Amino acid sequence: MTADTPASSDGPLVAELSEDALLARIFPLLPVGAGTHVPPGDDAAVVAAPDGRFVVTTDVLVEDRHFRRAWSSGEDVGRRAAVQNLADVAAMGARPTSLVVALVVPADLPVSWVEGLARGLAAECAQLQVGVVGGDLSGGPVVVVSVTAHGDLAGRAPVLRSGARPGDVVAHAGVAGRSAAGLALLEAGRRELDTVLVDAHLRPVSPLDAGPAAADAGATAMLDVSDGLLRDAGRIARASGVRIDLDADAFTVDRDRLRSVADELGAVAERWVLDGGEDHGLLATFPAGSTLPVPFRAVGRVGEGAGVTVDGVAAPARSGWDHFGG
Amino acid sequence: MTADTPASSDGPLVAELSEDALLARIFPLLPVGAGTHVPPGDDAAVVAAPDGRFVVTTDVLVEDRHFRRAWSSGEDVGRRAAVQNLADVAAMGARPTSLVVALVVPADLPVSWVEGLARGLAAECAQLQVGVVGGDLSGGPVVVVSVTAHGDLAGRAPVLRSGARPGDVVAHAGVAGRSAAGLALLEAGRRELDTVLVDAHLRPVSPLDAGPAAADAGATAMLDVSDGLLRDAGRIARASGVRIDLDADAFTVDRDRLRSVADELGAVAERWVLDGGEDHGLLATFPAGSTLPVPFRAVGRVGEGAGVTVDGVAAPARSGWDHFGG
Repeated sequence: MTADTPASSDGPLVAELSEDALLARIFPLLPVGAGTHVPPGDDAAVVAAPDGRFVVTTDVLVEDRHFRRAWSSGEDVGRRAAVQNLADVAAMGARPTSLVVALVVPADLPVSWVEGLARGLAAECAQLQVGVVGGDLSGGPVVVVSVTAHGDLAGRAPVLRSGARPGDVVAHAGVAGRSAAGLALLEAGRRELDTVLVDAHLRPVSPLDAGPAAADAGATAMLDVSDGLLRDAGRIARASGVRIDLDADAFTVDRDRLRSVADELGAVAERWVLDGGEDHGLLATFPAGSTLPVPFRAVGRVGEGAGVTVDGVAAPARSGWDHFGG
Repeated sequence: MTADTPASSDGPLVAELSEDALLARIFPLLPVGAGTHVPPGDDAAVVAAPDGRFVVTTDVLVEDRHFRRAWSSGEDVGRRAAVQNLADVAAMGARPTSLVVALVVPADLPVSWVEGLARGLAAECAQLQVGVVGGDLSGGPVVVVSVTAHGDLAGRAPVLRSGARPGDVVAHAGVAGRSAAGLALLEAGRRELDTVLVDAHLRPVSPLDAGPAAADAGATAMLDVSDGLLRDAGRIARASGVRIDLDADAFTVDRDRLRSVADELGAVAERWVLDGGEDHGLLATFPAGSTLPVPFRAVGRVGEGAGVTVDGVAAPARSGWDHFGG
């Protein structure tokens, strides 16, 4: 489907403003950040890296591929673009410090949509004292939001995917399956059936504080669950040379809610939980006997071998989410 | 015009490879960088920031807006994407350390084009020991290359646009007008007339070492000349609250070459020099009597007042390059 092109009630379109005028509307909406030495407006920004290292990650959202303007407001897309990048920073055990945004916009996009995007970025960043410290703007055929986020490890060793050891506890923080269920509701045109799930897709919430907390608690491996529990557990298994054994019963928080929606849509709730992406929870492993930091819950164990099991049954290998093919 | 869609002699298209298979071709081409603690492959990379701060900037290139596939190879676009970002880092007085790339590619793009892009990024980065430390890949209707670059100030104060003072010398490093002349040749279908100028457009060369050297020599203001000498001089003038007086005779290095091409095309060489963008030279101001670091040449003076003059004549105010309108 193509995106709606809203009418004049949305105010001017980006083509009706100069780039300077558009930037003048956006910049005041963006937080400077607690650790920003030189804010946007020069050739580059300067950001504090008290640790002497910085964490950096980049993720891009493309209209009609990662979101649809008919379903997502500019603010939704801004929030999601921020969260998916901040979650990658947190998954290293770092606290986010700053991000930059490159934005491609079609000429017929309402300026209000771009302002919404800025407000969405700001809403996720301001509470964490994360600065939006730079950006670039270009025209193009569809909206592209490319975010690069940075974080500070505060002396911690980064928590990689490769450190899980047999005997470790597998733990999860955040939700699982809500985003996939929300997407299914949108695709079915049934968003009214459970707006909480739809919101979880449009504006995912990641337990960002849990990242540094996990590092402090001795997490041996960690990642942001962006492509589904099984796929992402498989990544830890591969990188660490171990087997990840998950307990399906550990993911019962939303079971009734998801099953109720799945029944309506003729879908399978368990697939949303195990294969659904974009919930941006954190999956981590801890030495046996660790006190798990809130809100982590034990969801399995690390064993010798390879691959991922659910309730003792080997899960079929899943490749990464594929942007081009099947 | 639309880009050529090359035939099967170019090998597979991106749609024929899984994302993992495509990434497996790209990653080995990219340099890790001298200061990279955690290379790509985890949720985020970790990069050294020995200064305790890092410089960060982002710039995006969009197909059919900033480049055409009929004119630019993948390697050209990779080089240009790297250079325009590295030049912004250098213009702060910093040495580049790392960059990340978000890449949007249409399904019918040859894989060889993407490999060329990676080689172009690598060619610009490897010689500087800059790492390509992260990336993201998505499908989309046109090629979008979004680069974020980082640098280290090594204890230097960042050189802003706002520090120029009356009495300072204005100096320039790099070329002026070549890129605009090269673009004019491409647009006229006359690239054979001067391939050096065409190459200057497709693969600009920025005097990156001159950025930190200028900072060490006491530069009071500096920027990367991306939107034309007059526009960018105007930015220093505005940010510093001064007037910039340029001497047209200071830009004679390429005068005969540019005039010869301009005569053929019915263009005006002086406009390419003063208004042409994307040469990525550095424009800086230094206290009077400074020894200018190589390859800076004095091109004018800073005076009291506002705006930019050329040979004593006020240049009309120019706004920033506009991606949407007139």
